[in-house]
Amino acid sequence: MANYRFFVSYEGTRYNGWQRQGNTDQTVQGKLEAVLTRLFGVLVEVDGSGRTDAGVHALGQVANFHAPQRKDAAKIQEYLNQYLPKDICIYGLEETHERFHSRLSAVGKTYCYRIITDRLRPVFEQRFVWWLPERLDKNAMDQAAGYLVGTHDYAAFCGNPKMKKNTVRTIDRLDIQETEGMIQILVHGDGFLQNMVRILTGTLVEVGLGQKSAEEVQRILAAGIRAMAGPAAPPQGLFLESVDYDPPFLFREGRGRRNLW
Amino acid sequence: MANYRFFVSYEGTRYNGWQRQGNTDQTVQGKLEAVLTRLFGVLVEVDGSGRTDAGVHALGQVANFHAPQRKDAAKIQEYLNQYLPKDICIYGLEETHERFHSRLSAVGKTYCYRIITDRLRPVFEQRFVWWLPERLDKNAMDQAAGYLVGTHDYAAFCGNPKMKKNTVRTIDRLDIQETEGMIQILVHGDGFLQNMVRILTGTLVEVGLGQKSAEEVQRILAAGIRAMAGPAAPPQGLFLESVDYDPPFLFREGRGRRNLW
Repeated sequence: MANYRFFVSYEGTRYNGWQRQGNTDQTVQGKLEAVLTRLFGVLVEVDGSGRTDAGVHALGQVANFHAPQRKDAAKIQEYLNQYLPKDICIYGLEETHERFHSRLSAVGKTYCYRIITDRLRPVFEQRFVWWLPERLDKNAMDQAAGYLVGTHDYAAFCGNPKMKKNTVRTIDRLDIQETEGMIQILVHGDGFLQNMVRILTGTLVEVGLGQKSAEEVQRILAAGIRAMAGPAAPPQGLFLESVDYDPPFLFREGRGRRNLW
Repeated sequence: MANYRFFVSYEGTRYNGWQRQGNTDQTVQGKLEAVLTRLFGVLVEVDGSGRTDAGVHALGQVANFHAPQRKDAAKIQEYLNQYLPKDICIYGLEETHERFHSRLSAVGKTYCYRIITDRLRPVFEQRFVWWLPERLDKNAMDQAAGYLVGTHDYAAFCGNPKMKKNTVRTIDRLDIQETEGMIQILVHGDGFLQNMVRILTGTLVEVGLGQKSAEEVQRILAAGIRAMAGPAAPPQGLFLESVDYDPPFLFREGRGRRNLW
């Protein structure tokens, strides 16, 4: 047995999210497991650092799997990249210690949500942004973001109504960056509830549109009532950027989104 | 009657190129004409500055059409953007003088071709680049590009074997820019033959791979024999960036590709 971990980038457009679901294999986890099972000749299960929703993208998702026998890491990576669909790419695959678990060992995550506010439809970015041709009040959004940072019970921002577990999380960074015609929301925390980044975004957008005040966001957080918060922003604007581990690990061969435009 | 001109951005992935072809309307021209014909209630024909091949993108294609009656330009633009598919966007639509013709009045064009040379497959850019995981010798490519600049008979770089017309064109700029893992070929000229930018790119890549010398490119140009030049580079790496007119015209509301990555 050997435990391997790797980074994986994927465009979520065609997938029902990360997590395998019954018989359908239109999930990223399902695609990975199918190729690894073929390579090793026995059922291989892949654990990810967390789920991503249908349509959400990942730049640096981290996952691991226990293989029935040791194989050369570069060869496993090459095999995966040869047989995976074009919208999934594996990088930095390496053997790690037996107890490494991509989800349980994770200590933090960074997400980025992008909104294009241009009056005109973005043609080349349509799969990767929320197009919202409206004026957003960044100052009000910044103020609301300030209330959302910290260690809080984020029950109001949890998309799973049956969530029984602890909904306390720590967000230590929630930055709103504005460039011409685009708003980027960068969030870093120790963990996120289901749909949490999308609901935070949807709520911040309501503040930006003047439909809610920043103070209202503070009250929503305190009340913990999902119905008070905004709707989940659409999935295609969201990227899982990176996952933190302690000790940290990085790969020599960086993969990233490029300045194509 | 009124003559309108406009800019149009499109992602070429889903289309059989710009030019309408018989009954199929899976062309950009066909989509535009269908919406305009519905708006005006009579058949409207749209002229573009030139064709783009299937799978080729345009950032600033220019087109014009003669409408049977005058309508508010902003309303026409709005109607088009409402009913066109998501991968086509119209901007800067305005009425122009009767004699303006997007193709005949054009005096220059800029194209950009992008190649990603990373060993790893680009996930998010797959529709917009040629992924060629090889080392390209930029110096040799620069030297070959130098031979290709000027006023020449580009018959060797014409994809249409039945081309009867003059194949002399002027390329006044052919720049190869290298950033980490990416090569961009920017070309500006007074006009381009069928597949010309893709064949120039395919030939420059052969030079970059060491399969042809720069001097060979000079001989190919002089010989004017298509079979001596390289293959056409794949369409998805190519963007029609802009079209020049004299006097020039621009629109206040710029549309462009963004630094999403």
